[in-house]
Amino acid sequence: MITPRTLQGFRDYLPEAMIPREWIMETARRVYRSFGFRPIDTPALEYLEILTGKGSEETDKQLYHFTDQGGRAVGLRFDLTVPLARFVAQYAPQLGTPFKRYHIAAVWRGERPQAGRYREFMQCDFDTVGTTSLTSDIEMTVVVHDLLRALEIERFAIHVNHRGVLNGLLEKLGLADRSTAVLRALDKIDKLGPERVREELAETASATGEQTAALLRLAALDGSNEDVLQAIEPLVAGSDRGEQGVAQLRELLGAASAAGVPAACLRLNPAIARGLDYYTGLVVETVLDDLPQIGSVCSGGRYDDLASLYGKQQLPGVGASLGIDRLLAALEQLGKLPAARAVAPVLVCQFVAARRDDYLRLAGQLRAAGVGAEVYPEPRKLGKQLQYADRLGFRSALVLGEDEFAAGQCQIKDLAAGTSTVVAYRPEAPEELLAALRER
Amino acid sequence: MITPRTLQGFRDYLPEAMIPREWIMETARRVYRSFGFRPIDTPALEYLEILTGKGSEETDKQLYHFTDQGGRAVGLRFDLTVPLARFVAQYAPQLGTPFKRYHIAAVWRGERPQAGRYREFMQCDFDTVGTTSLTSDIEMTVVVHDLLRALEIERFAIHVNHRGVLNGLLEKLGLADRSTAVLRALDKIDKLGPERVREELAETASATGEQTAALLRLAALDGSNEDVLQAIEPLVAGSDRGEQGVAQLRELLGAASAAGVPAACLRLNPAIARGLDYYTGLVVETVLDDLPQIGSVCSGGRYDDLASLYGKQQLPGVGASLGIDRLLAALEQLGKLPAARAVAPVLVCQFVAARRDDYLRLAGQLRAAGVGAEVYPEPRKLGKQLQYADRLGFRSALVLGEDEFAAGQCQIKDLAAGTSTVVAYRPEAPEELLAALRER
Repeated sequence: MITPRTLQGFRDYLPEAMIPREWIMETARRVYRSFGFRPIDTPALEYLEILTGKGSEETDKQLYHFTDQGGRAVGLRFDLTVPLARFVAQYAPQLGTPFKRYHIAAVWRGERPQAGRYREFMQCDFDTVGTTSLTSDIEMTVVVHDLLRALEIERFAIHVNHRGVLNGLLEKLGLADRSTAVLRALDKIDKLGPERVREELAETASATGEQTAALLRLAALDGSNEDVLQAIEPLVAGSDRGEQGVAQLRELLGAASAAGVPAACLRLNPAIARGLDYYTGLVVETVLDDLPQIGSVCSGGRYDDLASLYGKQQLPGVGASLGIDRLLAALEQLGKLPAARAVAPVLVCQFVAARRDDYLRLAGQLRAAGVGAEVYPEPRKLGKQLQYADRLGFRSALVLGEDEFAAGQCQIKDLAAGTSTVVAYRPEAPEELLAALRER
Repeated sequence: MITPRTLQGFRDYLPEAMIPREWIMETARRVYRSFGFRPIDTPALEYLEILTGKGSEETDKQLYHFTDQGGRAVGLRFDLTVPLARFVAQYAPQLGTPFKRYHIAAVWRGERPQAGRYREFMQCDFDTVGTTSLTSDIEMTVVVHDLLRALEIERFAIHVNHRGVLNGLLEKLGLADRSTAVLRALDKIDKLGPERVREELAETASATGEQTAALLRLAALDGSNEDVLQAIEPLVAGSDRGEQGVAQLRELLGAASAAGVPAACLRLNPAIARGLDYYTGLVVETVLDDLPQIGSVCSGGRYDDLASLYGKQQLPGVGASLGIDRLLAALEQLGKLPAARAVAPVLVCQFVAARRDDYLRLAGQLRAAGVGAEVYPEPRKLGKQLQYADRLGFRSALVLGEDEFAAGQCQIKDLAAGTSTVVAYRPEAPEELLAALRER
């Protein structure tokens, strides 16, 4: 006998966990599509050189890679951005621009598993590629907003910042050549606090006390969006990138409410850096008011050069990624996940074995009318069948014995309420029963 | 520069291909759920011993496997049945019985790629585990029927057979000890014809001329379901398994129409064996009337022992798998795929740059009313924007210049018809425009 087990860092999804996960993915698909984003898919396995081409040492270490039967060096994708870059470079003429795509798929990272970190997880990305227009940046914030609202989350803020502001300040401070180290350090301010970030800045970016103080002042700016904007302006004055960053933020914040994002949902937060090198403009993170400590549930930004590693065009773009697993954990913690519901609301009990075909007919009539229905497969004791219905969260159970068939009736058991009602039902006239069930 | 390319046998899905693929998966999910099947998911990577435990040499050769960073022998799943077996053994007490699950996920096989064969493809399985009741076998045929109808396929037949019939005949012929070789050979009768199968039977099962003749007689039986049943009966008389097989087939065929499968859609076909060892009862294949040569698009059957390799319980069950890729190819060949449609029906043109926020507002109003809408991100020439709308299959494009804003109007271009109409629109009163677009 082989012990049934999964690899460390990998998870099985039982139906109770998979049903809300499918709901999130379906909702994301629906929202993305409503903005004109179109689905794509790419292979899980790619040539290793495709995956490592742009990677940092950190990413390379995390890669699942091996030599395949044909002697090729291959790897499992670790995100959906590298495959997107390869994809747009490969099909650029066919795709045209603007190219708006979403991609919902698993990725793999061999990192050491820890609480909330897994070696296999779903990414749920959307991007608009091939345009530098701020319209797409604004739209990104609308997508994030509409997505969270569609997921029935009311209390959240989309934190926005602009790499131009950060880089403008770095230019003025003489730290432009150390921007990666500085942004990595700043990115940890929420987790580590200013003291530890100060230490890291001195260590990895050789920042002086004065430079560090200016950076931390920027990160600590607070108040209304307009207050913060006005406080930033003098810090980056004279830097083209900085001034352009401020101008774009101002335009974005102004457009938001017309575009459909209530002003209260957008918060200018100069502390957001996002570690990744490739962001160049707007960066966003999305924080739940009731669970700020879990971090951003939807993050992204604008980049200048998606694809030059794989083709002649740089291709600018803007996009974000919904953290499905993190969001699922959050919804569970907030008690916002609908209690495990049966995927079909009605269980047709198999009460009299000789009536099996009648039960199957009845279930077919319900489904044809749009009411999901399952026939209990065996003529077991009714108590056992009702137990099953309870455990799986069915809303109603239908009981028909010979008496009911003779009288042209059907018993409807409401499983939550524990009550029973009797409704007319004949195979040739199911309307009354259908109406009663649809009402629930 | 790194050449952008995919591994041989792997595919990218551009939106034109991915949109119908998502439609098939969504339809399968909806139909499976309506019967009470619940979703699960399992890791792409498993311990190698889990995957090879039950495998034939053939399967082992096809496995993508390697040693991970922790020195573990791991492999990519090659089907969804082995993970299901491991899963039900691991969580048996939690899951209870009957356990009805669906699982839609990618699998990987390192086999030599050939026309229509890929190294990565989607499987779309549903199974009822933990019951031997014929109700579940009948239901399986209903699921297959409803699924194909939901995919807008009208002309197809579900071919059914029973392993008991085949094994009963083998018993009577004295070939019971060579059943695997015999069933493998018989399975090829459609592809190779009786002559080649005769040769293979002699070679791999050492079947005599008389034994082979009896087998081929069974496989060639034709006529109405009742005719074939009556012809089979004497061939297996005296074998318990054979007689039980005939009885179950008779019951299934009798129940089908009550259960919702028109009699014309179910065809008793004694030539169906299905190569896999683990089937023990009913076996089904689904053949499109207009494309029989592509083979079965949905296949499955009943098995006695899903899980004893991984646990104490054998767990019987019944289930089938929709061949998404094969079906997609078939629908395309039949011209039944809806022409590539934009995922959102309305393009809001960006005509006057200074009006960007008004365009974003308008698109938001459309989406809030349930009409998908995309704003063209740049204020390019109108002709370019309409070209984009045409290419992506938008149904309508909205054009608002300063004249329209001043007059409180909006121009709707019908892209298929090439016509234009003018409708009242003001940001504070979008109802007339919404009504006009909803009508389309």
